[in-house]
Amino acid sequence: MAKQWTPQEQMLLRMTSEFTANEIAPLDLQIDHAGRYPDGLFEQVVATGFLSLMLPNEFGGAGFGPEVTAEVVRRVAEGNASMAATLEGHYKTVYQMLKYGTPALQAKYFPTAGQRIFGFGMTEPTGGSNPMSIRTTAVRQGSDWVLNGNKIMITNGGLAEVYCVLAKTGPQELSVFVVDQDMPGFAFGKRENFIGLRGTPVGEIFMNDVRVSDDYLLGQVGQGGEIGDSAHDDACILMGAVLTGIMDHALGLATSYAKERKAGSTPIGELGSIQRKLADIAMGRETTRLLYQNAAARHAAGQPYSEEATMAKAYGSRTAVAACDDALQVFGGYGYSRDYPLAHLIADARALEIAEGTVEKMRAAIAAEELAK
Amino acid sequence: MAKQWTPQEQMLLRMTSEFTANEIAPLDLQIDHAGRYPDGLFEQVVATGFLSLMLPNEFGGAGFGPEVTAEVVRRVAEGNASMAATLEGHYKTVYQMLKYGTPALQAKYFPTAGQRIFGFGMTEPTGGSNPMSIRTTAVRQGSDWVLNGNKIMITNGGLAEVYCVLAKTGPQELSVFVVDQDMPGFAFGKRENFIGLRGTPVGEIFMNDVRVSDDYLLGQVGQGGEIGDSAHDDACILMGAVLTGIMDHALGLATSYAKERKAGSTPIGELGSIQRKLADIAMGRETTRLLYQNAAARHAAGQPYSEEATMAKAYGSRTAVAACDDALQVFGGYGYSRDYPLAHLIADARALEIAEGTVEKMRAAIAAEELAK
Amino acid sequence: MAKQWTPQEQMLLRMTSEFTANEIAPLDLQIDHAGRYPDGLFEQVVATGFLSLMLPNEFGGAGFGPEVTAEVVRRVAEGNASMAATLEGHYKTVYQMLKYGTPALQAKYFPTAGQRIFGFGMTEPTGGSNPMSIRTTAVRQGSDWVLNGNKIMITNGGLAEVYCVLAKTGPQELSVFVVDQDMPGFAFGKRENFIGLRGTPVGEIFMNDVRVSDDYLLGQVGQGGEIGDSAHDDACILMGAVLTGIMDHALGLATSYAKERKAGSTPIGELGSIQRKLADIAMGRETTRLLYQNAAARHAAGQPYSEEATMAKAYGSRTAVAACDDALQVFGGYGYSRDYPLAHLIADARALEIAEGTVEKMRAAIAAEELAK
Amino acid sequence: MAKQWTPQEQMLLRMTSEFTANEIAPLDLQIDHAGRYPDGLFEQVVATGFLSLMLPNEFGGAGFGPEVTAEVVRRVAEGNASMAATLEGHYKTVYQMLKYGTPALQAKYFPTAGQRIFGFGMTEPTGGSNPMSIRTTAVRQGSDWVLNGNKIMITNGGLAEVYCVLAKTGPQELSVFVVDQDMPGFAFGKRENFIGLRGTPVGEIFMNDVRVSDDYLLGQVGQGGEIGDSAHDDACILMGAVLTGIMDHALGLATSYAKERKAGSTPIGELGSIQRKLADIAMGRETTRLLYQNAAARHAAGQPYSEEATMAKAYGSRTAVAACDDALQVFGGYGYSRDYPLAHLIADARALEIAEGTVEKMRAAIAAEELAK
Repeated sequence: MAKQWTPQEQMLLRMTSEFTANEIAPLDLQIDHAGRYPDGLFEQVVATGFLSLMLPNEFGGAGFGPEVTAEVVRRVAEGNASMAATLEGHYKTVYQMLKYGTPALQAKYFPTAGQRIFGFGMTEPTGGSNPMSIRTTAVRQGSDWVLNGNKIMITNGGLAEVYCVLAKTGPQELSVFVVDQDMPGFAFGKRENFIGLRGTPVGEIFMNDVRVSDDYLLGQVGQGGEIGDSAHDDACILMGAVLTGIMDHALGLATSYAKERKAGSTPIGELGSIQRKLADIAMGRETTRLLYQNAAARHAAGQPYSEEATMAKAYGSRTAVAACDDALQVFGGYGYSRDYPLAHLIADARALEIAEGTVEKMRAAIAAEELAK
Repeated sequence: MAKQWTPQEQMLLRMTSEFTANEIAPLDLQIDHAGRYPDGLFEQVVATGFLSLMLPNEFGGAGFGPEVTAEVVRRVAEGNASMAATLEGHYKTVYQMLKYGTPALQAKYFPTAGQRIFGFGMTEPTGGSNPMSIRTTAVRQGSDWVLNGNKIMITNGGLAEVYCVLAKTGPQELSVFVVDQDMPGFAFGKRENFIGLRGTPVGEIFMNDVRVSDDYLLGQVGQGGEIGDSAHDDACILMGAVLTGIMDHALGLATSYAKERKAGSTPIGELGSIQRKLADIAMGRETTRLLYQNAAARHAAGQPYSEEATMAKAYGSRTAVAACDDALQVFGGYGYSRDYPLAHLIADARALEIAEGTVEKMRAAIAAEELAK
Repeated sequence: MAKQWTPQEQMLLRMTSEFTANEIAPLDLQIDHAGRYPDGLFEQVVATGFLSLMLPNEFGGAGFGPEVTAEVVRRVAEGNASMAATLEGHYKTVYQMLKYGTPALQAKYFPTAGQRIFGFGMTEPTGGSNPMSIRTTAVRQGSDWVLNGNKIMITNGGLAEVYCVLAKTGPQELSVFVVDQDMPGFAFGKRENFIGLRGTPVGEIFMNDVRVSDDYLLGQVGQGGEIGDSAHDDACILMGAVLTGIMDHALGLATSYAKERKAGSTPIGELGSIQRKLADIAMGRETTRLLYQNAAARHAAGQPYSEEATMAKAYGSRTAVAACDDALQVFGGYGYSRDYPLAHLIADARALEIAEGTVEKMRAAIAAEELAK
Repeated sequence: MAKQWTPQEQMLLRMTSEFTANEIAPLDLQIDHAGRYPDGLFEQVVATGFLSLMLPNEFGGAGFGPEVTAEVVRRVAEGNASMAATLEGHYKTVYQMLKYGTPALQAKYFPTAGQRIFGFGMTEPTGGSNPMSIRTTAVRQGSDWVLNGNKIMITNGGLAEVYCVLAKTGPQELSVFVVDQDMPGFAFGKRENFIGLRGTPVGEIFMNDVRVSDDYLLGQVGQGGEIGDSAHDDACILMGAVLTGIMDHALGLATSYAKERKAGSTPIGELGSIQRKLADIAMGRETTRLLYQNAAARHAAGQPYSEEATMAKAYGSRTAVAACDDALQVFGGYGYSRDYPLAHLIADARALEIAEGTVEKMRAAIAAEELAK
C-alpha cells in the first residue's frame, strides 16, 4: 500500500501536480519537437524549489525522503518525462554528495544546489560494462588530485554545472570526485541527439588537468565502485518513477480517447481489443509503481534496496514501452502522428532499457542476487 | 514494503513455514501424481489450526487480518499449491460468512469452522459469464427458503461440508444462502479431473428442495451480486498469494539447480540465457507479490481493493505460468519429466487463468474500472 | 522455397538491388530526417522504370508477375522503406486498374503509368471500419457520374496524380471510380505528419462535383467492396515485402555491428543475449518472407490468397517492430540515437500495424476465414 | 506455395489422412493417459507401410522425398503427436543410413526397415552441449570396432531395434556406428517418464563390448560430427511437421468449439478475444508450416537447409506451445481438464523446445549462421 504522506508532503505533492499540469504538461509536445526546454521553463523549475527537496534545512532544503522525491518525479513525468529525467539525474547526484560528501564539499555546493543542476559522469567513449576499463584518472599531486579524462552520456550533461565523476586512482582502484564547470581544465563536449527524452540534455565533459583538493573526494579512496552502485540504485528508483509517470500519461490519454471515440455508435472502450490494452497498461503501470515504491520505502527504512531498485528499472522500462505502444494502437492513425504524444512516450520509455545499464545487464545483476541468496 | 508482522503473526508464519517444509512439501509430487491428498494430511492441516485463522477469539480463532491469511497461503503454496488453493477456497467463504452472516448462522457454523472446510458455489453447468443466467432458485415457502439447483467447479467441492450458494430469489434478483451436507436434499456430484492443482478437489453439489430459514441468508435478499463480488475479490488476493508461492517454489528450484548443474566446468547460472530466466522469474514473483499484498493491505485498511485484487490474479496467473515455464527450461530434460515438479507448477498456475473468472473477463473488469475513473 | 527467377527477372532484380544500394540506401537517414524525398530521387525512380513493371508490353511494361513486384519492393525496402511503400501504393492501384479497368480507361492512363504515381483512396475523416459508412458519393447525371467527397490517409496522396476512390452509388452500394488531379473539382488537402515512413507522402484529396464517364468506373456498379478487398490483398502482399526488407536492413546492421563491436576483447556477437536477438530477427524476417511469397505465389497461380496476404501484413508488422527493436538494443546507446537508422526502422514498421487495416481488424478477418472453413 | 504432389504422392497422403483419422486420432487421449500405444496400433502402422517410405524400390520402399515424409508426419501428428514423433525418430535415422551407410549395411538392415523401428543415440547421462564430451567409445580391435557406452534420451529407445550411435574413435574424433538389439553386449535401460509425447518411448541403451565390423561405420572415421548434424537437420524438418500437425489439431478443435459454444446467445467465435486467439493460432501454424516445407524443399533440391531446418524447430516449438495454450483458453474450464486433449497438446509441443537441442542452443546456431554470412 502506498505510503501515507504527511501534511507537508501532501502540500509539496499537490504543488508538484499543479505546477506540472499548468506549466510543464502544456509544453510536452513542444519539448519533444524542439529537442530542448523552452526558454524560461527550467528557471521556473528552479524557482519552484524542485532541486533541493532532499537537502537538510540548513542548506535550504526540506529534508524530504526518497519516497517523496520519487513521487515528485512520477508526477512531473506524467506531464513531461524529459523534465522528470532531468530531476532524476540531479537527485541521484545530490544523494551521493549527501551520503559521501565531506562537510567542506557540502558547504561549498549545497547552498546553491537548489539553483543549479548536478550530474554524474560514469560512462566513457571506450564503453564497456567493466568500470575498471575507464580511462579517466585522478593522480595525487601534493595534497591535490589532478583529473584527466572524458565522460559521455551524462544526464543533464551541459546543463549541469557540478559533476561527480568516476576516476581511477590506481590500476584497480576507483574513486569519485566532484568537479564543476568553473574549474580550469573543465570543458563541455557534444550533446547526444537521442530519439526520446528529447528535452533532457545528455552530454559530454572533458577534464584536462582539473585540480581539486581532498575535500572533493567522495567517501574514501577506492570507494568509487560502491558510490557508483549507490548512484545507480538511486537512479533506478527514480527511473521507475519516471516510467510510472509515463504510463500514467499514456493511460490517461488512452482511457479518455476510448471513452470519446466511437466505432459506429459504440465507444471503442467497449471493444474487447481496446479493453485488453487498457487493462495491460493499467497493470503495467501498477506493477512498476509498486516496484519503485517498494525500493524507495526500503531505502527510507534503511534496508537493502539494490535488487528492488534494479527491478523497478529493468521491469519498468520494458513494460512502459509495451504500455505506450498499446496506447498508441488505441489511437490508431492519430497515435502514429507526430502531432500526438504517444510516439514520443514510447521513445522516452525506451531510453531506460539502455541508459544507466542495459536491461540485459540488469537482468544479470538480478540473477546474481538471486543466485547469492 | 512488506507489512511488519506482530510477534503473534511472526509465530504463526514461522509455524506455517515449518509445517509446510516438514509435512506438505515432501508430498508435493505425490499429491500431483495421485490427484489427492494422502490420508491424514488434511487432518494434520486441520489440527494445526489453519482453518480458523481469521475468526474472532469467541469462535476459537485468532482474528488474523487479510494480510496474514494471504501470507499463510503463500507459504503453504511454496510447498504445495493444491493445499494453498484448498485454504483459499475455505478462507474466501468464511470471509463472506463473517461479513454478511447472521449471528445465528455464525453461532451455528463458526465453532466448527476450524475443523471442517467451507466452499462457495457460483458456477453452473449452463456456464456463461452473466450471473443472472444461473438456474439455482431459492423460493419462499412460509418463513423458509427452498433451494433447488446444481453448482459445479466448486473449489473444495466434495471435501467441504458447508457451502455458500448463489441463487435467484427473483427474475433479476440474486441472493446467497448457506447450505450444508447434512441437510435433506443436499447431494454431491462428480469431481473434476483437472490437469493442475490436482490435490484440490473441484466438485459439484446438487440441491433438491433444500430448506433453510432466514438465518441462512447472507446479507439481504438481492445482495447476492455484491456478496459474489466480495468473495471474488477475496479469492483474487489469495490466488495472488498462491501464485507467488508457486513462483517462490519455481525460483528456489531453478536457482539451486543453476548453481549445481554445470555445462562443461561452468555452472549454468553463469550463462546469459539462464540468468535472463532467473531474473524474469524473480521479477514476476516480486511484481505479483506486491500486487496481492497491496490489495490485502487496502482490504485491511478498509479501502476499496477490487481492482487491485483483480490485477493480482489476472497479472499473476499469466506471469506465473511464464515463470514456471522458464524454470522448466532451466532444468532442460529433467524439467520435462514427471519426476520433477516443474511441469505441475505450470499446470497449477494455469488454473488461475481460468478459475474464478478468466483472464479475459478480468481484463475487461480492470478496463471498466479504469474507464470509470 | 523461393521462386526460381527467369533471366529477365534476374536482370530486373539485380538492377533493383544496384539502384537501391547506390541511389536510395545512402539517402535513408536523410529521407527520415527531412520527411521527404530529396529533389531528383523520385525522378530517378521513374526513369529507372519501376512504376510500370506489371503492365503489359503494349503499355510499355514488362508484364512482371506479383512475385516479381513483391521482390522489387522488398529490395527497395532494404535501402529505404518509404520508397518501397510509395511503390506499394502505386502497384496496388495499378493492379486494380489492370484487373477491373475498361479498355478506354487503360488506354488513357496506362501509357503514362510508368511516369506518374497512382493512389487508392478508401478512408475518410469520419473513420470507422465499416465501408458502408463512407460519405463520398457518385451520383448519376445523364451518362456521367458526379463525385463528391473527401479521402484521407492515401498512400502517395499529393504525390500521386491518378486516384481510385471508393464511393457510394446507393445507400448500400459501393463502387470504385478513377479520378485525376487535372479534373475540375479535384483538390489536394493536407499531408499527414507521421512518425515513420516519413518519405512516403500520406495525404488527402477533395472531390467537389468531379464529373467522369462510365469509362472511369472500375468493374461494375456495386463491385466496390470486392475491388477494395482486392486492393487490400495486393497491398498486404507488398507490405509483407516492405516489412521483410525492413528486417533485412535491421539484420544486416545488427550482424555487422555484432561482429565489430567488442565488450572487452570479445565481439558482442559471442554473447548469448546478442545471439538471441540476432536469431529472433532472422526468424522473424524469414517467416514474414515466406508468408508474403506464399501469398504472391498463390496470386500468380490464380489461387485464393486473401487470408495468406492478410497474414503477411498482420504477422509481419508486429514481428518487424519487435525485430527492429531487438536490433536497436544490439546497438545500445547508438541504436537510441537519431544518427543511426534503427529508430526509424521501428517507426517505419509500426505504420503497418495501423495502415490499410489495423492488426486487430486483420486478426478478426483471419479468424473469420478460419471459422468459415 | 506448397509443393504440387504427384498422383502417387497424393494417394499416399490421402491414405495417411484416412489411417490417421480412423485408427490413430480416436486413440489420442488414450495414448496420452496410458503413456503407451495400445496393443496392435504400432503393428498397424508397420503394416500400412509408413516405415519405409523413403527407401528405394529395391528395399521395398517407394523412394518418397523429404517433402513427402514431412507431410506424412504432419498428417499423423494432427491425429496424435506421439506417433508422429515415433516416425520422426525412425525417419531421421534411416535417412542417415541411406546417405552414409555402406552397401553391406544397407543390404543388412533396409529389407527389414519397413518392419522395425530405428533410433539415433547421441545424448549421454553426463549431458553437456559439447559432443566431444561424450564417453561412448569405439576402439579398433583387429578389423572390428568394440563399442562401450550408454546413450539416453533416444526417441523410440526401447521400441527401436536398430540404433545409430555417436562414439569417440579418438580424443577429438567422433564417428557413428550402427548397432542392434541382437548384438551381444547390447542392453536396454530405463524409459523416461516425460510429461508429453507420452506415447513415444524415449529410452536408454547400454553397449558393453559390442563388436561390429567396418560395415557398421557410417561414412568415414571422424565424420561423426557431420552425420550428427545431418541427423539433427533432418529431425528439425520433421519436428517442424510434428509441430504444424499439433497446431492443426489445436486449431481444428478451437474453431469447432468457437462455432458451437455460446456466451448467452452469441457464439464465442464472434468475441474479439476468441478471434484474436484463433488468428494467432492460424498464423503460428502457417508460419511453422512454411518454415519446415521450405527446409524440406531445399533438402529435396540439394540446397543447404541447416539454418532453415533449425528455424522450423526453434520457432515452431515456442509458437506451438503458445498456440495450444491459446486453444486451451478458448475451451476455458474444459480445456483445463484431462478429459480434453488441449493440455497434452501443450505438453507434446513443449518437448521440442528441449529435445534434439534446446531452443537456446538453436538460437545460438542460427545466430552463428547469420554472423557467418
